[in-house]
Amino acid sequence: MDREIVKLLSEAGGVAIFPHVSADGDAIGSSLALAMALKKAGKDVVVYVEENIPAVYRFLPGTELTRFYDSSDEAMDINLALDTGDVGRLGTRGEAFFKAPCTVNIDHHVTNTKFALLNYVDETSASTGEIVYILLKKLKLHIDTDMATCLYTAVATDTGGFKYSNTTAETHRIASELVSAGIDIGELSQRIFDNTTYPKLRLTQKAIELLEFYENNRLAVVTFSRADLLATGASDEDCDGIVNIGRSVEGVEVSLLVKEKNAEEVRVNLRSKTYVDVSEVAAAFGGGGHKRAAGCTVNGTLQQVREQLIEAVKDRL
Amino acid sequence: MDREIVKLLSEAGGVAIFPHVSADGDAIGSSLALAMALKKAGKDVVVYVEENIPAVYRFLPGTELTRFYDSSDEAMDINLALDTGDVGRLGTRGEAFFKAPCTVNIDHHVTNTKFALLNYVDETSASTGEIVYILLKKLKLHIDTDMATCLYTAVATDTGGFKYSNTTAETHRIASELVSAGIDIGELSQRIFDNTTYPKLRLTQKAIELLEFYENNRLAVVTFSRADLLATGASDEDCDGIVNIGRSVEGVEVSLLVKEKNAEEVRVNLRSKTYVDVSEVAAAFGGGGHKRAAGCTVNGTLQQVREQLIEAVKDRL
Ligand SMILES: [Mn+2]
Ligand SMILES: [Mn+2]
Repeated sequence: MDREIVKLLSEAGGVAIFPHVSADGDAIGSSLALAMALKKAGKDVVVYVEENIPAVYRFLPGTELTRFYDSSDEAMDINLALDTGDVGRLGTRGEAFFKAPCTVNIDHHVTNTKFALLNYVDETSASTGEIVYILLKKLKLHIDTDMATCLYTAVATDTGGFKYSNTTAETHRIASELVSAGIDIGELSQRIFDNTTYPKLRLTQKAIELLEFYENNRLAVVTFSRADLLATGASDEDCDGIVNIGRSVEGVEVSLLVKEKNAEEVRVNLRSKTYVDVSEVAAAFGGGGHKRAAGCTVNGTLQQVREQLIEAVKDRL
Repeated sequence: MDREIVKLLSEAGGVAIFPHVSADGDAIGSSLALAMALKKAGKDVVVYVEENIPAVYRFLPGTELTRFYDSSDEAMDINLALDTGDVGRLGTRGEAFFKAPCTVNIDHHVTNTKFALLNYVDETSASTGEIVYILLKKLKLHIDTDMATCLYTAVATDTGGFKYSNTTAETHRIASELVSAGIDIGELSQRIFDNTTYPKLRLTQKAIELLEFYENNRLAVVTFSRADLLATGASDEDCDGIVNIGRSVEGVEVSLLVKEKNAEEVRVNLRSKTYVDVSEVAAAFGGGGHKRAAGCTVNGTLQQVREQLIEAVKDRL
């Protein structure tokens, strides 16, 4: 942790915290935890959010410290961006951010553009929550149950519940310390993770209904037309994760989600389990990604693209 | 950890390990880890399994040390049961277990009957894997990547991926140490958790299709007839977790799964999110459970029981 940032924060009278637009569990959790800690230390604190806090995170302590920026607001000593890779991720608050005499940028995105006066970016951290945890320790501020609840939410959501490959020994070490602060893991996890909407469920239902298997059940394919999506009431965003359903089936190696984008374009998401490099398949269609998760956007009709992708995958099974 | 158990294990020439019947990730993971460590320490080791290792866990290292008990097998110095609450959980291996001059029972079930000569039961442990981790430390045996993979599987499965309320600071501390041993969290988690069967998926599809909402969407109900279950090809066991689907929907407080058991009996699973005590509802129908998860078996037709339960829940919403 940058010593100058620690020193400036400990001396500041007022701090405004800026989580990124479309704030996720990490942005919100780390912002609320830092806000509560600085407030408890006697500072003026506000968290400037771009949108209302998503329903799923409204139970978190500290939300009373959040509000929308008003151009008549007086500038704080420090404006601090959290979990924000670049100025664009500040949305409409970009101008407001640079009004403070001192700007700080604390993040874990490897693509961070270091847009502030002082920048601390640790891309080995699975979450900004972990960095804020370290920061609070350096500031010698006590992490109470409320702050621990917010930080645990940050860490748990950005690691997909300690399942993604970004999860490190340090992630679990910090989680251990946070649990010691007295949080109720069962209730907290349920609130964060066992959480969906009816349109999302209907999309899952439709995906299972349309699931097809090829090549001795090693290839699973879901094909969504615009009509399918409309019928469920789900958004394009709700499609996140649908491709994982096919891969989760015993024996499946590759899973495809072939989704009609518009009359000319089809979006394809690819996943593999253990040996097929789907980034190669995606690259052959102008896309890219990683060995086990890739994507491409292809010109053609839904059925054409579907056939082409199935053929391309077959060769590698 | 019991000193006598540590001493006996370190001095033993041969050890046979007995995981419980229908072995889960904790039973298998902790057995394989202990077996590999003792083997590496130069001992004769075998893991006597009751059934073939479930497909999902067959990728784990150490499975070559498992086999079925044969009555001509010579007794080892120590027979050690892991994750096994009582003799019944040894299945057909009950007699074989007591043939060794020394029997040991290491477990975390609060109901453990202490059936062996030496018993170590730590009910504050979320998993037997955590106890085996401590045991290996006491035995001063190095935990290599293979053993860490098995122990992490044990810990992660018994805590529902660090989500259940049994997850402690110690759980995360041990997970942190295991990650340090070089395991690939992303791939391991996917193998353990993103894993289902087609009948299970079809059951999920059917459940979403049948999902009904009452009381301003605060009550979600799924009603399964025997015909519904048959149509999906799913087993009664596959119904585990189906009741959580309803609860996961935004705004729902209570979720019911009303399932036809046979012509006379209906099984009901109840879940609540934040304030309804469903154990009280279940108790009123001769069942029981916890505040947020309960169940009861009720005489009557599917529709009768469904109506009765909906009425009983309505009063508490
Ligand atoms: Mn983040
Ligand atoms: Mn267990």
